[in-house]
Amino acid sequence: MYIRKQRMLTPGPTPLYPPALHAMMASDIHHRTEEFRSIYKAALADLKEVFGTTNDVLCFTSSGTGALDASVSNLFRAGDKVIVCNAGKFGERWVEITKAYGLNVTELRMPYGDVVTPEMVEAALKAERGTKGVFIQASESSTGTQHDVESIGGLVRKTDAIFVVDAITGLGTMPLEIDNWGLDVVVGGSQKAFMIPPGLAFMSVSPRAWKMAETSDLPHYYFNLKKEKKNGDAGESSWTPATSLILALGEALKYIKSIGMSNVIRNAQLLAQATREASTELGLELFSKRPASSVTAIKSPAGMDSGVIVKGFKQKFGAIITNGQGSMKGEIFRLAHLGYFDFTDSFGIIAGLELILRANGHKVELGRGVAAVQRVYEAAQ
Amino acid sequence: MYIRKQRMLTPGPTPLYPPALHAMMASDIHHRTEEFRSIYKAALADLKEVFGTTNDVLCFTSSGTGALDASVSNLFRAGDKVIVCNAGKFGERWVEITKAYGLNVTELRMPYGDVVTPEMVEAALKAERGTKGVFIQASESSTGTQHDVESIGGLVRKTDAIFVVDAITGLGTMPLEIDNWGLDVVVGGSQKAFMIPPGLAFMSVSPRAWKMAETSDLPHYYFNLKKEKKNGDAGESSWTPATSLILALGEALKYIKSIGMSNVIRNAQLLAQATREASTELGLELFSKRPASSVTAIKSPAGMDSGVIVKGFKQKFGAIITNGQGSMKGEIFRLAHLGYFDFTDSFGIIAGLELILRANGHKVELGRGVAAVQRVYEAAQ
Repeated sequence: MYIRKQRMLTPGPTPLYPPALHAMMASDIHHRTEEFRSIYKAALADLKEVFGTTNDVLCFTSSGTGALDASVSNLFRAGDKVIVCNAGKFGERWVEITKAYGLNVTELRMPYGDVVTPEMVEAALKAERGTKGVFIQASESSTGTQHDVESIGGLVRKTDAIFVVDAITGLGTMPLEIDNWGLDVVVGGSQKAFMIPPGLAFMSVSPRAWKMAETSDLPHYYFNLKKEKKNGDAGESSWTPATSLILALGEALKYIKSIGMSNVIRNAQLLAQATREASTELGLELFSKRPASSVTAIKSPAGMDSGVIVKGFKQKFGAIITNGQGSMKGEIFRLAHLGYFDFTDSFGIIAGLELILRANGHKVELGRGVAAVQRVYEAAQ
Repeated sequence: MYIRKQRMLTPGPTPLYPPALHAMMASDIHHRTEEFRSIYKAALADLKEVFGTTNDVLCFTSSGTGALDASVSNLFRAGDKVIVCNAGKFGERWVEITKAYGLNVTELRMPYGDVVTPEMVEAALKAERGTKGVFIQASESSTGTQHDVESIGGLVRKTDAIFVVDAITGLGTMPLEIDNWGLDVVVGGSQKAFMIPPGLAFMSVSPRAWKMAETSDLPHYYFNLKKEKKNGDAGESSWTPATSLILALGEALKYIKSIGMSNVIRNAQLLAQATREASTELGLELFSKRPASSVTAIKSPAGMDSGVIVKGFKQKFGAIITNGQGSMKGEIFRLAHLGYFDFTDSFGIIAGLELILRANGHKVELGRGVAAVQRVYEAAQ
């Protein structure tokens, strides 16, 4: 009825950085020209800086899942023993991909909201000698949970296995010391902390991972890590790239560098902390035992379907937030913080949440959750 | 240091409606084609519907001031007696324009924050027989004040004078019954409630005003009301129009029509009411004796330069709000509500204001102003 801005407050796609969006308008550019090569080279160099690694960083025109697929099809052999840490919908995806390529999968499964611990991985590595790879989500966005990839990385690097990390929502929301922690493969996606639309996937590849690529025998064509690395060094992509998104990426990376990746991460951490403290003030319970800073999963109050809250945001405020996935649907709702989010967004989101909860019979003192967010802002100054 | 979205929270330019911004990308269009004529005709028709008048509505490629100028140069004769209601910086502009064209000006001047009353106009019309025009601001955005144009219109229409209303920030923020209230000329601007960038001015012209155009003898060329009316009827503009802005206008008008102009107005009124109530809760005083809904002018707390608040919004939250103009600078700050603003914006703005006031020594209970905004939201459901 009144004006309600469409706000996309989901854990991807995330709110877009406007200058990146505007940069896409310069897409009347051919990808096999010196002009584009220099743009692409600069973007790859900035990407590597933002990943914070000496490893190679590749870019694919695909969704993040494409790069997850590529990490399996380019680095392993049929029948390879691998360990998959599975504590959510994206952990399940790792299981599906590794099985699709005929790997011999040991699944470490934990209930939604919980984590696979370093101890579990340590025990599995001992039990499964000859394991070639360990797969995990840095941030499992279906449950708003983050794994201790530092500790697990330390365990994996003592073996011959490589550590393959889905950091699609982890990059830019949590520290990831790729080189120090032994994260051999790290996958990211454009529509997350990179603040641009979906369509690009990123992957860092360590020397240990490259070594495995030498003996890999799984079929692949479009996703070819070696080819992409060779072409990327020359400012080329193997196939026609999504030029508009690379223009956007270049602009977004400039912005991320200007703020500093560590501050982009701190930004997400502060907004996540603020959201957790606001939730507590509003009498709500968190879903995750080890909350991520990419997205906060909050349990709906007893007797209230979380869909009511999702619908409330859409209908009352024009904002899109996410429900739980699978069996979590109706039980939890998720408020994102990754990418182009700021405190003013959080003030508005929590004020809206208070009104939605009240309209549905949950007792709320207006402004109380917002004040919790404000206190986190003040303490961070 | 962290992410701070650039938010333009001023009484013009106002936040842009994204689909209108995107529509500008279709500017590879020639203005003397059937394709553009149909777009322009539709925009003019929608503009008339949104103005809510049977009078002609014209469009100029200029800022709003261009149309103010046009109303004088096209409708009056040198030496004509006119009455100018002046209660702010934009009232002063009417004085300057009318004097620039050699009109015989009676100025009804009131202090900033106050209004020119119907009684004052009535007395002036009696004293100045033969007055040809009365000039006013519907909403004086320098002081956040609105005039009683309904009552004044009723007085002017009893005489031979025409009533010329600068409604640049009034349109879309207050009811303006152009036909019923006798508003002979009403001027609007694209960068206000129309939610698009600056560069277009709009003007409705009544039969009484057209009659005056017949005898006007003031020099003009670019701004030619009769020529623009004749061309507009054929889907043409007199000169090369700002095609990108007309594409944006078409998109924005579709949105405004989908909400309904009365709801766009109500939206601004509610946000203004919420801002006033939040200000009171935070111990702040309003500047205007008759507050407008386009923008709320708030006095800075005693001893605090309002520039501190303006700077605080920019530095702490990346948001642009406006200081007072002229002698009001340092005394007041202004929070806008016109155009593409919603309640979620207001939650964020007031939460930010609370933090800025506190950081500068003003006693504030966090969340108290936000709760006032939330209560207005709830009451409006």
